[in-house]
Amino acid sequence: MNFEISILGSSSATPIYQRHPTAQILRIHERFFLIDCGEGTLIQMIRYKIKYQRINHIFISHLHGDHYLGLLGLISTMHLQGRSNELHVFGQPELKEIIDIQLKYSETKLRYPLVFHMLDAKSSELIFEDEEVTVNSIPLNHRIPCTGFRFSEKPRKRKLDRDMIEKYNVPIELYEDLKDGKDYVTAEGKTISNAELTQDPKEPRSYAFCSDTKYDERILKFISNVDLLYHEATFMSDKASRAEETFHSTSAQAGIMARKANAKRLLIGHFSARYKNLYPLLEEAKAEFSNTTLALEGDRFSID
Amino acid sequence: MNFEISILGSSSATPIYQRHPTAQILRIHERFFLIDCGEGTLIQMIRYKIKYQRINHIFISHLHGDHYLGLLGLISTMHLQGRSNELHVFGQPELKEIIDIQLKYSETKLRYPLVFHMLDAKSSELIFEDEEVTVNSIPLNHRIPCTGFRFSEKPRKRKLDRDMIEKYNVPIELYEDLKDGKDYVTAEGKTISNAELTQDPKEPRSYAFCSDTKYDERILKFISNVDLLYHEATFMSDKASRAEETFHSTSAQAGIMARKANAKRLLIGHFSARYKNLYPLLEEAKAEFSNTTLALEGDRFSID
Repeated sequence: MNFEISILGSSSATPIYQRHPTAQILRIHERFFLIDCGEGTLIQMIRYKIKYQRINHIFISHLHGDHYLGLLGLISTMHLQGRSNELHVFGQPELKEIIDIQLKYSETKLRYPLVFHMLDAKSSELIFEDEEVTVNSIPLNHRIPCTGFRFSEKPRKRKLDRDMIEKYNVPIELYEDLKDGKDYVTAEGKTISNAELTQDPKEPRSYAFCSDTKYDERILKFISNVDLLYHEATFMSDKASRAEETFHSTSAQAGIMARKANAKRLLIGHFSARYKNLYPLLEEAKAEFSNTTLALEGDRFSID
Repeated sequence: MNFEISILGSSSATPIYQRHPTAQILRIHERFFLIDCGEGTLIQMIRYKIKYQRINHIFISHLHGDHYLGLLGLISTMHLQGRSNELHVFGQPELKEIIDIQLKYSETKLRYPLVFHMLDAKSSELIFEDEEVTVNSIPLNHRIPCTGFRFSEKPRKRKLDRDMIEKYNVPIELYEDLKDGKDYVTAEGKTISNAELTQDPKEPRSYAFCSDTKYDERILKFISNVDLLYHEATFMSDKASRAEETFHSTSAQAGIMARKANAKRLLIGHFSARYKNLYPLLEEAKAEFSNTTLALEGDRFSID
């Protein structure tokens, strides 16, 4: 079962050097989650052969243009291309007004249900849950209300050990009990411990998306032990005061957050237009947290 | 003095095959007019090395997303990059509301004055004038209010014939009278005709932009004798009923409009996503009006 993030854009507001603003596709099993949707996201999805009609959930962190201006074009094209499935959009409450007036003035009556979910940027909430995945919001610290997201697999059930089950002749109707961790009691009354009959399942995987935010250790508890952390790194440390003023982070700060959160791997992005060469940002983050990678558009990162 | 149109995008709503939605730059002398601003226009301008801060006037035909969704990103980036010059935006009245709420929710206070000019989609008006150029609006026939634009050089003054002026010793203070077409009366009372002292100026040049519209001959009077006509050609004739239903034109209809308007040259664009190969659309238009060219992004067309 896959758990893979595709980067469609990782530029900050000015799309220089043909770098696109923030957008990512997170694929968990057969779900396609779109995270942020800067201008040009649809054309990027076509470029990278992502079947955009398979997206059923869109998460928009905040209302700076480089994080949402591609949304209306995507919503409209889904409509024009005959979508009928529900589309769920998670965003700050004002995003609904922005969507609604643009649909109104273009006289577009969507052929599919658009379900809007309002985020509360001040608290962490469970905003999505199905049988395999949960999504929790993360309160970030930006100039305007801004929300990050943590996507987690639910813990899986224990795996049956086929050889041992055969050996003890466990009846099929008890398999689910074994998967849930129960011991098996034989017809003779002998207890076989669950540990003998099952194996540990794979660890549930998780991805956290933190953009845009200034360095804020209150965020750590929401991203602790994450397998893959995306954290913005708009500036280098020589612009730390500019980062502070604009409620952004430096590359070093992104590295520190990853280390303090005990993340397994860090992706950095949201690069300022002032950096044509991004490798110095990478080096700066690596000095704090060695398992860091640049989030470059077109790149995909799997968690195994 | 240049008079040149650059095509940044000519796709209809779905941006397939890496074709971008409608946007054009018209350069007349040192003016840069942006006509429509579909999603991705800014990144297209950067790709084609157009200095976007030199744009002072933006004309938006209507409120379907493929004609304006790049506007907010451009307005914001002009701001972030330190613009101070006035920016004039011409659009349907509701566009102002769309701009205003997005600036409000992103808490953006523009560093430059944005002057909004409301179009009246039902009539043709002089909407811009300076010493050399006029712009008139063109009422189009689309599903929602939609305006075309005719950009015209003002007639130039007559050109002085330096040899003849010397021959007759015309005093310098009368030069402007000669340029205005007046005859010269010598000190001896002899009248020298203006035609002997001046030459015809170059003909004023004009460009008309018609997108989106169904075939409507009421438009002809606003585009008559234009040097270069852009007319949408969303479909081929086998989809004429689809064109009619969606208030669009076929390629043949674009050709007929150019011929009936006595245009000198026709550009066609706004191609449906159903056409990967655009040459059949070109051939269809050429059968009606031979001097037709596809408006392909990256191409430039000068009027000499």
